[in-house]
Amino acid sequence: MKVSAGLIAGGGVGFLALLQAIPSPKPQLPEPKKLTYTPENVIWPYIPLDPMVSAERAYRFYPDGSCMYATVLSIVSQLAEQVGDPYTHFPSHLFRYGHGGVGGYGSICGALNGSAAVIGMLITDKNIQDSLIADLFQWYETTPLPHFAPKEGASTDSLPESISQSVLCHASNTKWCEVSGFSVSSKERKERCRRLTADVSYRLTVILNALYAQEYLSGTQHNTEAASCMACHGSEGKLDNTAVKMNCNSCHTESLGHKLFSEAHYQLIKE
Amino acid sequence: MKVSAGLIAGGGVGFLALLQAIPSPKPQLPEPKKLTYTPENVIWPYIPLDPMVSAERAYRFYPDGSCMYATVLSIVSQLAEQVGDPYTHFPSHLFRYGHGGVGGYGSICGALNGSAAVIGMLITDKNIQDSLIADLFQWYETTPLPHFAPKEGASTDSLPESISQSVLCHASNTKWCEVSGFSVSSKERKERCRRLTADVSYRLTVILNALYAQEYLSGTQHNTEAASCMACHGSEGKLDNTAVKMNCNSCHTESLGHKLFSEAHYQLIKE
Repeated sequence: MKVSAGLIAGGGVGFLALLQAIPSPKPQLPEPKKLTYTPENVIWPYIPLDPMVSAERAYRFYPDGSCMYATVLSIVSQLAEQVGDPYTHFPSHLFRYGHGGVGGYGSICGALNGSAAVIGMLITDKNIQDSLIADLFQWYETTPLPHFAPKEGASTDSLPESISQSVLCHASNTKWCEVSGFSVSSKERKERCRRLTADVSYRLTVILNALYAQEYLSGTQHNTEAASCMACHGSEGKLDNTAVKMNCNSCHTESLGHKLFSEAHYQLIKE
Repeated sequence: MKVSAGLIAGGGVGFLALLQAIPSPKPQLPEPKKLTYTPENVIWPYIPLDPMVSAERAYRFYPDGSCMYATVLSIVSQLAEQVGDPYTHFPSHLFRYGHGGVGGYGSICGALNGSAAVIGMLITDKNIQDSLIADLFQWYETTPLPHFAPKEGASTDSLPESISQSVLCHASNTKWCEVSGFSVSSKERKERCRRLTADVSYRLTVILNALYAQEYLSGTQHNTEAASCMACHGSEGKLDNTAVKMNCNSCHTESLGHKLFSEAHYQLIKE
């Protein structure tokens, strides 16, 4: 049974009691599935790359063009050396636009935007593209970062890690500031983004290598809470008013109505 | 005088009364400034384009690769015809990744991501890049869309307009669903995104034409409310815990603490 918009709008303690008697919209989570690479769903050639080389290059290129540029160039520069055309004339310069969540606007993390651009560059099949992007983005939302330790560069001190719970640049940064105690304008926060870019490039390379080795299993992790929201709000739900895979809670549990709803709701899901 | 985090955390009616006695952090809004195009801050050649041709092409290309791809190709295809290289071998295919807020993840609107990519492709000066992106994104957040009326295509019926208040795909779509009454999975919502892509490509062309005619005035509109948030949360504020230009309120007034704070706060700003 689904919980209707009217019930959600009710709010308050009486609502909470009522909700506890209602079966929750338990999300249907799809099984992990193997993605198969065939010549038909690939546009440009790829050969297996060393993830640590990708990470080190992303870290090295970062000061020249920030997160999105460094991520794209970390992969393209290796393919240009090892494959040649079409990578030798690739317009990597354009990806500087993605810094700070697109021109400093604070939206999508540039390392993720750049990784998705690389996936779009290599693979034509939309389902494979979307699956790889969702897997990478969910990993980013749930993994303590940064993890990469540079051998050289601005700083070799260790840095605190945080779990972003969001693919948005500003939210990811704010979470790290909260956990680390550093300000957003500190050199440590900038170094955090530089290392995180290396981490994302490493992960992207691992994903691409596994796909091209025919060993890639997609959807091994799920955001159960977001799936629960989508049971009502998604195209299969009664509300059918949003299409999204982002972690919902990093913004939307700020709503008191949703907070009451969510707590009772997750309780029921766990039971 | 700035309002500290401790005061904000207090909450409640007493807090509201207290807050009303505190001078608000009135944001310092920069004056609009003229951006100058010189050969030093441009990478690839540009010539003035007809905005309506951009819009019509974006609308036409949309079914082949969605919002980001259609926006990029609407500009690049005209430059390939009128300028030639380097546009003739431009890898437009890769921008299909941006559909549905990057691989369907619901983050940044693909028409905006594609426009920012075009700006990054043409212009090397970071300040000009960021200014054009911020102007376009703020226009998107505050303008009733879609406005474009197709001559041919899936539908020529008129569609309701909504003000997105957000550059995020899922939030922009949800707002339109709320205003129009259509579901997110309806053919009308898909047609809305197709027309909106035409609108964004039109606006991007107007911006680029003005810049290259040395007539572009940047920063003519501001998000006063977001600037007010940043007076505390930005790098010049006491909290210094986020870097962002996105409209804050589309997510963050859901917080009861922020709602109380904001209402009193805006009241003071208006006075």
